[in-house]
Parts: sequence; C-alpha cells; structure tokens
Amino acid sequence: MYRTVRNLQRFNSSLSALQCCTAIRTLGPTPHTPLRMASSESYRIERDTFGELKVPSDKYYGAQTVRSTMNFKIGGVTERMPIQVIRAFGILKRAAAEVNKDYGLDPKIAGAIVQAAEEVTAGKLDDHFPLVVWQTGSGTQTNMNVNEVISNRAIEILGGKLGSKDPVHPNDHVNKSQSSNDTFPTAMHIAAAKEVHEVLLPGLQELHDALAAKAEQFKDIIKIGRTHTQDAVPLSLGQEFGGYLQQVKYSIERVKAAMPRVYELAAGGTAVGTGLNTRIGFAEKVADRVSALTGLPFVTAVNKFEALAAHDALVELSGALNTVAVSMMKIANDIRFLGSGPRSGLGELILPENEPGSSIMPGKVNPTQCEAMTMVAAQVMGNHVAVTVGGSNGHFELNVFKPMIIKNVLNSAQLLGDASVSFTKNCVVGIEANTERINKLMNESLMLVTALNPHIGYDKAASIAKTAHKEGSTLKATAIKLGYLTEEQFDQWVRPQDMLGPK
Amino acid sequence: MYRTVRNLQRFNSSLSALQCCTAIRTLGPTPHTPLRMASSESYRIERDTFGELKVPSDKYYGAQTVRSTMNFKIGGVTERMPIQVIRAFGILKRAAAEVNKDYGLDPKIAGAIVQAAEEVTAGKLDDHFPLVVWQTGSGTQTNMNVNEVISNRAIEILGGKLGSKDPVHPNDHVNKSQSSNDTFPTAMHIAAAKEVHEVLLPGLQELHDALAAKAEQFKDIIKIGRTHTQDAVPLSLGQEFGGYLQQVKYSIERVKAAMPRVYELAAGGTAVGTGLNTRIGFAEKVADRVSALTGLPFVTAVNKFEALAAHDALVELSGALNTVAVSMMKIANDIRFLGSGPRSGLGELILPENEPGSSIMPGKVNPTQCEAMTMVAAQVMGNHVAVTVGGSNGHFELNVFKPMIIKNVLNSAQLLGDASVSFTKNCVVGIEANTERINKLMNESLMLVTALNPHIGYDKAASIAKTAHKEGSTLKATAIKLGYLTEEQFDQWVRPQDMLGPK
Amino acid sequence: MYRTVRNLQRFNSSLSALQCCTAIRTLGPTPHTPLRMASSESYRIERDTFGELKVPSDKYYGAQTVRSTMNFKIGGVTERMPIQVIRAFGILKRAAAEVNKDYGLDPKIAGAIVQAAEEVTAGKLDDHFPLVVWQTGSGTQTNMNVNEVISNRAIEILGGKLGSKDPVHPNDHVNKSQSSNDTFPTAMHIAAAKEVHEVLLPGLQELHDALAAKAEQFKDIIKIGRTHTQDAVPLSLGQEFGGYLQQVKYSIERVKAAMPRVYELAAGGTAVGTGLNTRIGFAEKVADRVSALTGLPFVTAVNKFEALAAHDALVELSGALNTVAVSMMKIANDIRFLGSGPRSGLGELILPENEPGSSIMPGKVNPTQCEAMTMVAAQVMGNHVAVTVGGSNGHFELNVFKPMIIKNVLNSAQLLGDASVSFTKNCVVGIEANTERINKLMNESLMLVTALNPHIGYDKAASIAKTAHKEGSTLKATAIKLGYLTEEQFDQWVRPQDMLGPK
Amino acid sequence: MYRTVRNLQRFNSSLSALQCCTAIRTLGPTPHTPLRMASSESYRIERDTFGELKVPSDKYYGAQTVRSTMNFKIGGVTERMPIQVIRAFGILKRAAAEVNKDYGLDPKIAGAIVQAAEEVTAGKLDDHFPLVVWQTGSGTQTNMNVNEVISNRAIEILGGKLGSKDPVHPNDHVNKSQSSNDTFPTAMHIAAAKEVHEVLLPGLQELHDALAAKAEQFKDIIKIGRTHTQDAVPLSLGQEFGGYLQQVKYSIERVKAAMPRVYELAAGGTAVGTGLNTRIGFAEKVADRVSALTGLPFVTAVNKFEALAAHDALVELSGALNTVAVSMMKIANDIRFLGSGPRSGLGELILPENEPGSSIMPGKVNPTQCEAMTMVAAQVMGNHVAVTVGGSNGHFELNVFKPMIIKNVLNSAQLLGDASVSFTKNCVVGIEANTERINKLMNESLMLVTALNPHIGYDKAASIAKTAHKEGSTLKATAIKLGYLTEEQFDQWVRPQDMLGPK
Repeated sequence: MYRTVRNLQRFNSSLSALQCCTAIRTLGPTPHTPLRMASSESYRIERDTFGELKVPSDKYYGAQTVRSTMNFKIGGVTERMPIQVIRAFGILKRAAAEVNKDYGLDPKIAGAIVQAAEEVTAGKLDDHFPLVVWQTGSGTQTNMNVNEVISNRAIEILGGKLGSKDPVHPNDHVNKSQSSNDTFPTAMHIAAAKEVHEVLLPGLQELHDALAAKAEQFKDIIKIGRTHTQDAVPLSLGQEFGGYLQQVKYSIERVKAAMPRVYELAAGGTAVGTGLNTRIGFAEKVADRVSALTGLPFVTAVNKFEALAAHDALVELSGALNTVAVSMMKIANDIRFLGSGPRSGLGELILPENEPGSSIMPGKVNPTQCEAMTMVAAQVMGNHVAVTVGGSNGHFELNVFKPMIIKNVLNSAQLLGDASVSFTKNCVVGIEANTERINKLMNESLMLVTALNPHIGYDKAASIAKTAHKEGSTLKATAIKLGYLTEEQFDQWVRPQDMLGPK
Repeated sequence: MYRTVRNLQRFNSSLSALQCCTAIRTLGPTPHTPLRMASSESYRIERDTFGELKVPSDKYYGAQTVRSTMNFKIGGVTERMPIQVIRAFGILKRAAAEVNKDYGLDPKIAGAIVQAAEEVTAGKLDDHFPLVVWQTGSGTQTNMNVNEVISNRAIEILGGKLGSKDPVHPNDHVNKSQSSNDTFPTAMHIAAAKEVHEVLLPGLQELHDALAAKAEQFKDIIKIGRTHTQDAVPLSLGQEFGGYLQQVKYSIERVKAAMPRVYELAAGGTAVGTGLNTRIGFAEKVADRVSALTGLPFVTAVNKFEALAAHDALVELSGALNTVAVSMMKIANDIRFLGSGPRSGLGELILPENEPGSSIMPGKVNPTQCEAMTMVAAQVMGNHVAVTVGGSNGHFELNVFKPMIIKNVLNSAQLLGDASVSFTKNCVVGIEANTERINKLMNESLMLVTALNPHIGYDKAASIAKTAHKEGSTLKATAIKLGYLTEEQFDQWVRPQDMLGPK
Repeated sequence: MYRTVRNLQRFNSSLSALQCCTAIRTLGPTPHTPLRMASSESYRIERDTFGELKVPSDKYYGAQTVRSTMNFKIGGVTERMPIQVIRAFGILKRAAAEVNKDYGLDPKIAGAIVQAAEEVTAGKLDDHFPLVVWQTGSGTQTNMNVNEVISNRAIEILGGKLGSKDPVHPNDHVNKSQSSNDTFPTAMHIAAAKEVHEVLLPGLQELHDALAAKAEQFKDIIKIGRTHTQDAVPLSLGQEFGGYLQQVKYSIERVKAAMPRVYELAAGGTAVGTGLNTRIGFAEKVADRVSALTGLPFVTAVNKFEALAAHDALVELSGALNTVAVSMMKIANDIRFLGSGPRSGLGELILPENEPGSSIMPGKVNPTQCEAMTMVAAQVMGNHVAVTVGGSNGHFELNVFKPMIIKNVLNSAQLLGDASVSFTKNCVVGIEANTERINKLMNESLMLVTALNPHIGYDKAASIAKTAHKEGSTLKATAIKLGYLTEEQFDQWVRPQDMLGPK
Repeated sequence: MYRTVRNLQRFNSSLSALQCCTAIRTLGPTPHTPLRMASSESYRIERDTFGELKVPSDKYYGAQTVRSTMNFKIGGVTERMPIQVIRAFGILKRAAAEVNKDYGLDPKIAGAIVQAAEEVTAGKLDDHFPLVVWQTGSGTQTNMNVNEVISNRAIEILGGKLGSKDPVHPNDHVNKSQSSNDTFPTAMHIAAAKEVHEVLLPGLQELHDALAAKAEQFKDIIKIGRTHTQDAVPLSLGQEFGGYLQQVKYSIERVKAAMPRVYELAAGGTAVGTGLNTRIGFAEKVADRVSALTGLPFVTAVNKFEALAAHDALVELSGALNTVAVSMMKIANDIRFLGSGPRSGLGELILPENEPGSSIMPGKVNPTQCEAMTMVAAQVMGNHVAVTVGGSNGHFELNVFKPMIIKNVLNSAQLLGDASVSFTKNCVVGIEANTERINKLMNESLMLVTALNPHIGYDKAASIAKTAHKEGSTLKATAIKLGYLTEEQFDQWVRPQDMLGPK
C-alpha cells in the first residue's frame, strides 16, 4: 500500500510540472495540444552558466533542471529518476544542512533547508522532479534539481523570491561541502537500503512465514518425490515446502549479508574522493545524521575514492537479489507444476482461484501468481546484468552509470518485495494439498522399490520395478510373482512413512 | 515528441482511474487517506465468474480489470503495461471486428467495436488501462481489460448501459474468434514492429546521417591511430568516424533482418494454436487488415503453435537490439575519450557544451550525451537477458512470460531510438575536430616509424622508435643520429598522408 | 566424430610441447620437478626484441610464443586458443602467401609457406600451438605463434635451420602485408563460419529432420493441450511437434541470416584498418582465395576500420545462437515434462532408455539428453553475455577482447551442434507416444467444454466445467444432469478431432 | 604452477583412455585411423542394467562410464568434467568409506576404498575420468565413473579381478549410503571451496598486497583527477591506487562472505533429501571427515532438500565472483588508460614491457596483462549468467544443471585467481609513475580553480577557468588579468598539495 500511494502521489502531482516544461520547449497553444494548462503560460526567467531559460512559475526547480529536460528527451515519464532517490536526497540534504550549521552555516538558512528537505523526503514536492534516468551518468542534474528545489522552497519559507538564489543559494548553501559525485552515490545507498528494509525484507519475511506454516501444515502428508522430473522415492509435502522455506530463509540472509557495504556513504568525498572543500569530520557527522534520520546503521565510507569510482557495493547487492530471483523461480515453478491440472497435470496441490483464467476456455484457472513471480525473477536477472555492465565501466575517479545502476537495483528490490507479498497473499497461504491425488500417486509409485535394496539387493529390486513398469502392474504383485519375497515381507519393508529419513 | 506526448496523455488521464480502483480496494474514508476523490465514491457493480466487484462509474473497464488490480499490487504505475501494447490491441480488435463482420457479426456491433478500438489506438482511452506488467504471464488480464473497455465504450456509443454487456459483450463480440493466447502475442508483435519503425529506425537513421556528415567533414584530417589504447599508425578522422558510421549502418540492417519473423501474427491460433472456434481464413484476413491499418507487412504466422508457445522472434529482435547497444557503447565510449580534457585528456574532439558540468568544479563540461547513451546500452544488454530468460521458459502450448518480454523489447527499442536522437542532436552534430591538438599528437608520434619498415627493415625501425622513446626525441632526429637514413629520405618516406591506404 | 578426433589429435600431440616449455620457464632440475623430460633438455636459443629465450628443439614455434607461455599462466591447457582458430589461420596464411606471390614474393618462399600453412590447417602441427586464450586481447601472440611455426616449418622444408628466420622470416614473409590486427579477426571469422557450417547447421538440420518425421508420425494422435501448465483444449501431438519443428527451422534461418556479416574478412586492413603496407587489391584477392579454399562466400570487409575496432558481426551471430539456445531450452523442457513418469508424471511420451538412471533407485530412467541440451542452452546464454560485454568494450581502432569473443562463439556453436546431434540420435528419433495415456487424459479433460461455447454460450459451458471439476464427474454426465443438452448433442458437439483447426 | 601441473598430468595421462574408448566405439583398424593403439585392442566385458560393453583392459572405469562416452559426444576433451570435481569426489568417497566402516562396512573393503580414493584425490588416476560436462544433469554418470574407478582400483588392491565387482562393489560399497543426488553436490561444494581457497583467494591477496605497496609508493605524487573522463581536481596517485586496493580488499571479503553456505554439504540426503538408506549420524560424520581432510569448515547442510533441489549457494558465490570481475574490469581499464601513450595518451603510468607488442609497428608495447584481465572479467560475467540460468531451472527434488553450474563456478574462480597472479607479477609490481608527465598535466589543469571557490566564489572561479580555456592560457595569468586576485593570492590559495583532503 505504502508503495502504491507514494507512486501515485508522485505521478499525480508531477504531471503538471512536466507538462509545463514540455509546453515551454515544444508545444504552442495550438488546437492539437491537449496539455496546455494555465500554469504553462506563466514563467520566470532563470539562468545558469549557459544562459537564460524559462521556468514555470509554480515550480521550485530552476534553470539546470529545465535544461536537462531539454537535452534528454529519452523515454518519457516512466523513465524518471526513481522517486526513492529523490526522497533519499531529502534525507541527505537535511543531514548536510544540520552538519553545515555546526560548521558555521547561518542557522536561519540551515533551518529553512532542513524544512524544505523534510518536505522532499515526505513526498510533498514530488512533482518538482521531472528528470529522467537517462541524463548525465553522475546524476549531477538530479543533484542540481534537488538543490534548486530545496533552495527555492527555502527561499519561499524565508519570504524571498523564487529564482533569486537569495538568501539560499542552491550551490553555496544547499550543496555546501558536497558535490554531485559524492551526494548522488550517497542518495543511491540510502535509497537502496531503505527499499531493502521497507519493501524487500518485509516481503520476503511474509513469504517465509507463510511457507513455514505450510511446511508445518503438510508435515504428515507423504508424497512421491521427483528427480529429473521423474518419479523418485517419497518425502513429505512438509519436507518439500521446507526446502522452499530454507531458500527464502537464506534469501533474507543473503540480502542482509550484502548490506554492510551498502551502509557506507560517500558523503564527504566531494568531487574525486579527497574531500576537497569539506571540513574534517564532515563526512562522519553526515553519516551519523543520516543514520539517526533513517534508523539504519549508515557509516561514512572507508574509502571515498572507491565509493565514487565504483559501485561494487550495489553490484554485490544486485547479485544477492539475483540469487533471490533464482530461488523464487524455482519455488514458483514447482508450485505451478505441482498444482497443474485439474485432470491432466500432476495435481498434487490445489492453488487458490483468484480470477477467471481464460477468455476462451470456461472454468480454467491458472497459476497467475506464479507467473507474475517468475516474470519478476527474469526481470531481476536482466536488471542484474545491466547493473554488472554499468558497474564494470567506471573510469578513473568516477563511475558514470549511476542513475542506471540505482534504477535497476531499486526496481529489483521493489519487484521482489511486492511480488513476494502478492504471491504469499494470493497464492501460498491458500494452497491446499490434494491428498487423495497425492496418496494415489505415491501408492502407485515404482520407486518405493528402493526400500527393498537393503533386503533383496539392487539388482532384484531393479528387476521388480522394470517388470512392473512393463506389465503395468503393482510392485507388490510383481515382487511376489517373481518370487523375491512374500506379501508380508513387502508390507513390512515397503512403508513410505519409514522412508522419510535415515535410520 | 510524439512519444513524450503520448506518455503524458496516458499518465495524466489515467491517474484518477487508478486512484479510484485503489480507493475501492484498500482505502476507507479515514483521515490517513490522501487519495479519496469524488469519483471514487461513485461505482457500478459488475461481476465475473468469481463474483461481484465495484467498478468506478467513470471507467470503461470492468470486473476482470478491477480484480487484477486487487490481485497484482506489484510495482506501481511505473510498471504498467506499456501503452504501446494497449494501442496495438486497438488495431487488432478493430481488425478482428471488421473480419468478424465478414463472417456474420452484426454490422452495428462491429461498427461500434471498430469505433471504440480506434479510440484506444488514438490514445483517447489511455486512462482506462491500469494494469501492471506483473500479472498473468499470458497477458489475459490486459486482453480482458481491452475487451471490457471496448465493449463498454461500444455499448455507450450504441446507447446502452455500461457493465450490461449488452448489446456488446466483451467475450462474445469483442473477443470473438480470439483468445488471450493469440491476441496478446499479436499485440506484442504489432507494438514491437511499430516501435521499431516509429522510434528506433528513425533514431538510428538520424544518427547515421549525422555520422556520415562528420565522416565527410573530417575526411582530410589525419590523426594518430590507437590500438590497445596505445599510439599506433595514422588514419584520418573521417576514416575513424566512417567506422562508427558502418556500425550504425549495420545496426539498421540487423534490426531490419530480425523483422520478418516479427511481422508474423499469432491471431487465429486462439487458445493453443489450432484455431479452434475461428473460421477458415480468419487468421489471414486479420493479418491483412492489420497490415493495411499499420502500413507494415504483417502476415499470419506460418505456425501458430510456435507463435503462442515461444517468443523466439522477439528474443531474436532483442538480440539485434543488443548488438545495436554494443555498437553504441563503442561509439559513445570513443567519443568521450577522444573528447577528454580539456588539458589532460586526449583532446582530439571538441564536444558541444550543453549544460554546466559540475556542481563544484567551475568551467567543467562533461560528455553527458555519451553517458546517457552508454547507460542506455547497459540497460538494453540487461533487458536482453530478461527477454532471453523469459523466452526460454515457455512450457507446452504457451509461453507465460509475455508481458515481461514485450515490456523489455519495447523499452530497449524506445531507449535506443530516443537516445540516438538525443545523442545526435546534442552531441554528434556539434562535434568539432581540435585540429591543432590532432596535428601535434600525430607529428610527435613514434608509430610513424612503421612507414620505414619497407625501406630499412623492421629491426632498424624498431630501434629508432625505442631510442626516440627513451631519449624523448623525435623520430627524424633519432633516425639521422643512428645513421639509418638522411633527412631527405625521412621526409620522403614518413608522410602520414601516404599512410592511409594500400598502395 | 570429426570433432572428437581433431581435438584428440591436438591434445595428444601438444602435450609434450607444453611440458617442454613449462620446464624451460619455471622448472629447474630440482627434486621438486615432476615434469622434466628428455625433450626438455634440448633447446635452441631464439630471440625477439626483448632478448633471448630457450625454445624446445623439437618445436616449430619461437621466442614470442615461449614468452607468452611465461607471461600468461592463466587457466591451463583447457583454456588454450580454440584449435579451430589455429586451423583458420592456416587457411589465411596460405591465402596471403599465394596473393603475396602475385605481388612479387619469391615463389620458393611462398610455396614453402603454402605447404606449411596447409599442414597447420590439416591439423598436423597442432602440438605447436600452446598459447591460452587469456593473452593479449588482439591475439597478437597467437598470430606470431602461427608466423613462427609456419616460418620454421617452411625453413625446414627448404632445408634451413630452425630459428634462423632464413630463408623464411615470420614477420617479413609469413606476416607480409598483414598485422595481428587484421589477421586475427580474419581467422575469427573463418573459424566461426566453418564451425557454423560444419558442426552447427548439420546438427540443427539433423534435429529438424527428426522432428519433421515425428510430427508426421504423430499427426493423428489427438491429445490435451496445456497452457499455463494447466489443461487446455486439444491439439494433435503432430501439431505440438510441429511447433518444435518450426522453432528449429527458424533456428537455421536465424543462424544463416547472421552469416553475411561474418563472411566479411578484415584481411587487408593491417594495423588500424587503413591497409598501410599492403598493396591495392590485396584485401580482395585474399578474401577470394579464402573463399575458394573454404567453399564459403567470404568477401573483403566493406569497412576495415569497423572490422578491427568492433566485433558486432560475432555479437550478432552470438545473438542468433542465443535465440537457438532459447528454442532448445523450450523443446527439451517440454519433452522431459511430457515424458515424465513413469507413473506420477504427465507420461504422454515414452523416451528412449539409454543408460541406468539412478545409483540408488533401481529401474529409474531419466531424460538425460534433455538435461545435456538444457545445460548447453544455459551455457550458450552465458557465453552470449561474455561476447556482448567483450564486444562492447572496444576502444578506438581495436577491440581487444578478440580471443575471448571467438572462444565463446565457437564454444556455443559447437555445443549446440554437438548437442543437437546427441539429442536427436539418443532421444528424438526414439520417442514414442504413449497413446493409451494420451487418450485417457484427453477424454477426461474438462477443457473439451470449450467446444460447447458456440452452442450453449460461455457461461453455461463454464458452469458445466466447474461443476464437473467440483464433483469429479465427466463433462457429459454433468452437462446432461444440468439439463443444458442431450447425450446426442454432447457426442455430436464435443468431438476432439473437430477441435484441431478453424472451420 | 600447481594448476598447470595438475592439468598437464591429467591431459597427458588421460588421452590414451579416451582414445581407447573412442576406438571401441567408432574406429576400426583402417589406414585412416591415427589413434589406434595397442591398448585399444585389449578389452574386458562389463555389463550394466542395459547390457554388455567393452571396456579397455587398462582402465579402471566400467560399463556406465563407457556408456556415457557413447551417448554424450558433446564438445570433446576440452569439455570434460573439471578435474577439481573428480579430486573432490576422492575426498568424499574416502570420507564416506571411513564413516561406513564405523557403521559396519568390512574394514578391509573400507581400507581399499580409502586407498583408492586417496589416489583419485592425489591425481594418480586422472586418466580414468573421460566424461564430459554435458551428460546427465545430476552428474550421475560422473558419480558412477568415480564409483567404478574406485571399486576396480580397490579390487586390484585386494587382489581381485577388474570388472568383477568383487569384493568391492561400486554401488553397494563405494556408493554406500549415497546417491548421485547428494554426492555430486557435495563434490561441487568441496571443489568450489578448495578452488576458492587454493587459487582465488591467494591470487587476490597477491594483487592486494602489490596494490598496497603501490599505494604507499605513490602516496606523495599529486596528479590531476578525472571524472566523466574529463579533467577534475587533484588527488594523489597513492589515493587513486588506494581506491583499487579497497576494491580488492572488498573482493576478498565478498568471496569469504559467500562461503558459509558453500561449506554446507548435501551428503546424507541421498536421493531426494530424506536420507533414505542412510544411518542417523551419517551426514554429520561425513561432513566432519571432509572438514578434517580438507582443513575447511565444512558442515552438513541444514536442509538437504534445498541442497539437492537448488544451488543457490553456488549462484551466490558466482555473484561474488561477478562482483570481483566488475572490480577487476575497472582497475585494469584504468591502468591501461593511465598508461596509454607513449606520446598520444594519458601517459601517467609506465607499464612494464613484457613482450613485443605489434607484428607491424616496431617499438610498440601494449598493456597485455590488462587485456587478459578484462577478458577474464567478461568471461566471469558470462559464466555468472549461465550459472544463474542453470540455478533457476531446478524442478522438484533435484536441480539437473549441476555439471554446468560447477564448471562455470570453477572456471570463474580459477581464471580470476590465475589472472590476478599474472596481472600482479607481470604488470602491477612493475608499474612506475611518470612523474614528469603527471606534474605537467596537473600544473596545466584548469580544475585547480576549484580551490578559489571559497575565496572568490563559484561564478568568478568559473569565469577564470572558461577564459583560460578559451584563450589557452594559465589559470594564474587569467585570474590576474581578470583582476580577481593577485599573484601572491593565487600562489597561496591554489596549492594542489592542500587539495587532497578536508580541512
């Protein structure tokens, strides 16, 4: 719910923003233009080092943001910088202002920045961030977008005039002791850590708990095992679900194991990692503030050069997400095959019916939650390759695939988290065992013959199985007919319930 | 522009839609609910085979769409089914209605369906398609979303009551002779082919033409070559750009080479490829109609079983896009390195300055268009793996990674197309040669020594180069000092302009 | 067979080679040295521009080869340059010598080079190529290895002394008018094209033909279809195999469609693509000779700069192989699931039993050919990413991921070709339909209800299916009980054999 | 060295093995057959449950191994099961025999198995393992190959007759309490852990130490930084190398972090994870023995179902290797660009010259170690995708991509380890700083202007930089000319040595 709402807020409110700037650059008041709005006719003039630009009057962003929208028309609104990055920037800018105040920044200015930054984090200003991911690879334009919005909002709070850069300057005050090169990776790590903690881990935990309940519920149901997709010796359905449970348990561990390096923040490294133009202690204090604001154990990066020039920590996290995706693919595949039917499949599980399955075949119900989950898994595997390629192509003091990397990491974390919840609620918790079918299959199974190995040897056991298979008869009848044992011996030796563990 | 507008339209208008249905399912009239809107308080009741549901009064979609929004809360609005798929469905549904009319469908019903379908294609109903990609893997819910919207809109056109399924039934009329299993892949192919023709190929052509102009403009500028990133024998800057040009030329060819199989449409295969419940000739006629409506050479799929069960054609297209991405990565990387500096880089190219480059370093200008392009390239490589994984995991008569596959293919095509335009306009056309720098580097180059091989042999030539390198002197001075040749001979033999081709 | 033999030959004979040079470079006559052998005690001294080196007396390679073995101890013998590249070099060096003769090379020298080069191509000198893939990214060391071997063998033919470079010099004669930068990519393309034509396409054709035979054999067997892994409307088993057949048919087309650009040869581009130090016409003549020697339509590359700096053609081919892998994964997965059982699976196909399946479960037979094929498919998908990453990382006038790229392309082509043959011979040709099981499943299927849609409408049909499902009864009994139709009507309307196509 | 030797041993000795069996199946004593050898004419007859087979007299393997060579002619000798897996099997089989003795296995038989297994691990029997990776996906055939070799060798030790299965039976004794399904994954984990500890981690540590020494050596050399590939503010060369050092340090940590789940052994799970036909305590005792034999902290898997059905632990490890590859790509790319030249590149580093660089350009020296390393990095990224695809496609109780998965994981670990050593020894330790060039570039840099921000403000600083850039003059001259400061102020404020950290 939280996620849907925050996305909705953003798109709802931000559209007029983009419409304005789109209007500026390309749309005249012609009859063909459905997007013309009142606000698009009201501008202020701002300038950057490249010249003057019209900025919509009702927007807090400034010239550099507008310039980016003009230079990077790639992909449209669905390709915007993830809102989680913007919110994370709010946290960082607030933390930096508070620390800068300690180092002498005018408390009034600092206070206004803090207030504006809080509004960014709270999602109140989402519609002032129109830039797409496909901009400069350092994320500079988004950093400037944030600086412009916060400075203008702070100016407004202090009663100044938007665009005047007075009394709050986007570079000199909001970006003080910072560079895009250290702020953007800091925002990346904050956003990733929050997504992991707020969306992914809770989602995985929910799935974990549901699988644990199923493993317990199914613990006494003995079923045929399948290896190579072929009939094999029995196990309990609880054991089978216990395997899935273990995968999810380790999924959670894997994600957590990747986090220590994600908690490292680049802030304080400024342009190349040296910390030029910052003060001693700034980096540590900012990390402390971010940690306090988020409740997550952020620390200042051990090595700022590495933190700017590489994003190995996010490649590592993406690798953990890739492993989670692998686990999910296995689990969802198994469940849809075990639930296949109703009459011509394996039919051991009864999956919840959530919607009509076919527009042409009446009565058909499909494992749609498994399908959504496996599609998510495939996407995460692809996202991981994008992150890997981007992560490997940094040069010298800066990796310039930053926006692309964080977009994919956040997408993977969100999709896995959301899909885990959907899969759990709409599928896992409602799964029931088709015990009649399970029993039938198990009792017909030729693989129970394995239990005879210690009694009559592998070769005679194999011959029973092969003969029964060829003749379509039962193991017991065949064994007796072949004279290898008596009915009593068979009943005593071939007991599925005794085949579920070592002795 | 087209793309931005169509996306904008969609998001603008569709938000209230989602807000409504979100409100329906999860939000009560509590103080915590920021999304409650007037429209959300007005419903009609619809039902599917699973029961009754509230549908917002102002929406054309029906029960199955609402049910999907309830069951698949994965990823939010940025994860919606690409609007290109919806528009393509409009084309298909119109074509099917026209063909169905030939086979006896009531012309009044057919006419209303055609009109409603045209509105879908024209983007007038974008806000009635709230479903996300992460739904059933067959895209059934989007097919039903389309059926519901078109039937309700057609009902409205004919003066009926929304939700009544009368006189236009979503299944019996709009989906007549169709199944999700053949319509969704048909819409996938239509959408992919259109994106390729409307966005990707024009973008590549624009880049091609700009590179051709640069290759011509730079044809007489002789510069040092670089192999292994190290100094090598000379070539002209025009030749260097000619290599890029060839890559883009072949990019266009590669994409086109993948299209014949994308032009094959599954329509007419219905549920499993047999064409059950269709009429002989239906498949061919629908393909003809789609071809006429789009101006693209669509044909009915040679084998409908393959067309439903596999998406090899889109994996193939994605592979072509992957190759294009590889070319783009090379070109953009070269340009940023050749344009590196201003003083401590290679400095042979002067790239256009489009925006302030650094929030901390004044005067810095960065190759941001190259960065956007290389990020896009990495994304396309990742998308390709997602498509590959999804394409390989079909089972039996149906691949159920359809929405994920088409999302990624469209994303790759769009990003490459848009980025090509942006890169061309904001970078390539403005590239200038720094001839002073180019001449200086070439004249200092030790690799010109290669021209002496035929005259004094490899070993003496090597010794000249090594000595000059060690002593920091010029080739000419060293060659003369070592007594291997005269100044006149050097000037005659070492002529960069004579080193640009065979003799 | 061919492939196994050629690999065997190579490994067999080349081992003493590597042992020698290993001994030379790292092992003294100490007690710790297990590899000292007679041959290692006999050296000649050769030199390159870096100094003197000991070369085993019985080897044709020279100093630069030995130096590479010293500098690149990465991965051992399994990581050697693919022998196909070496053989392709033999073709190229022969062609170049013949063309050089036309341009004035001493016919005696040219003749000896031609003879030696033919021996390389014939595999007679395989044990003289010890270098690994993980060397210089241009493949220079392998080019020099070839030059050294051919020059020394030619010297031997002409009665000279190994290592003397007289009368045949590795650079001045064997490498005449060539550079590693154009020869290595030429050898890459020759090797790839030959592997495609000699291994991959024949393998795919064999699979194609076997599937065509099965599609014909099974054309009258009607079976239940499965979509979403769930029961669906019927099709014939022949139609199902026809889908696989179409995939393989298109696999062949896809591979062929990628070949035109692979047929382009870089030879004649020399160091950076200009053709410096070659003669006008050299490039075209070499391509003609290679074409004549191989019977494949090689031509000189349209643009030599592109041909050296990028390997888009091989990325494209790898993309085609990736699509083939996707098809193979689908086909092999289907076959193992359709053949699952013997009692608790789908059981519609009877797969050939080729080997004992389990070391613990007697009588178990597994779809091992499907497993080999799907493992190959996964490998090819991974290889493709390696090729993509390597292809995208070229810089300036040279891509330096050449050996890695060709290794992966050859590996993919070979594995797909070999696995196709193995899969065909040991699985596909022996597949039988389990008609009893197929009939049983089809007749029990609830999805036959779809045939009633045109007669009684979707909603009644759905209610029959749902009721029958719930009550475990047949469609016919349920339909009659619900009063929707008569037994006669049911028998007339629900006829699987009438559900296999449009009407 | 160790690796080369072990590979050599294997290939050397194993060839006759394969030749034999090849000869058996396909080659007659014809004049065209170069491989006929004495041994191929001497067979014994063995049988499996499928019938009789000829086995070369001098080989320890038996019928099932021969059958696999007949059924899986895919890829040739370079595609054999990695020898590390075979050696790991030796450890496992020894451990199992020792534990089985505790549970009652005849001590004489157990002792012979232990001795034979030790020989496998010691590499004495390498030529008895001819099977390729592309076999059954459970690795059953390799498990049986091991069982056959050990049983026959044990029979020999005990004075019995090869092929008699008496007194040591491959299934009943060597495979006692085991299944392929738990032994193969156990061998996978043992092999992976050993490769990591013996090859990868030592290699990374060597690189780490060399980079640490360079970071220290270069700590006082101040140089220009580069962001976006463009000139930026200064840092020390030691700081730059410190970034690389941090990446390698974290590489080691990442690999170690993935190991706990790799230390979990499946042994004791037998066919489906239940431990059927084992004894209580068997699993734990085997893990203890393996741990003792290897010195690595192996434990029994927490959940045997997960350990057979999924290989998430190896996907996770592969993800760590992928991250290492990403780091290596960055480091090697930087070093080759910083070392580019000699005259037309960046030229800040002087890389060791290890070999002649060009067959056409005399005097050219190339960064070949960087090229080998980046090729390895690309391969590891590709391998990771193969592992991911294989890992995600397990079904029910068994993942059947086992041989492919372990092949790729071992290849990645080995290549990264070997390449790290090669890169360190032949490149990193010999890197020298070109201080003259470094100083020149730094002093000319316009980005030093950043130091003026706090004194004269961002806008004036930017104007100095832009003017100097346009006029080609120095910052100092421009600043004075523009009247923004005095020469003394400039000298006092613009001091690179003061720009390396916060204040």
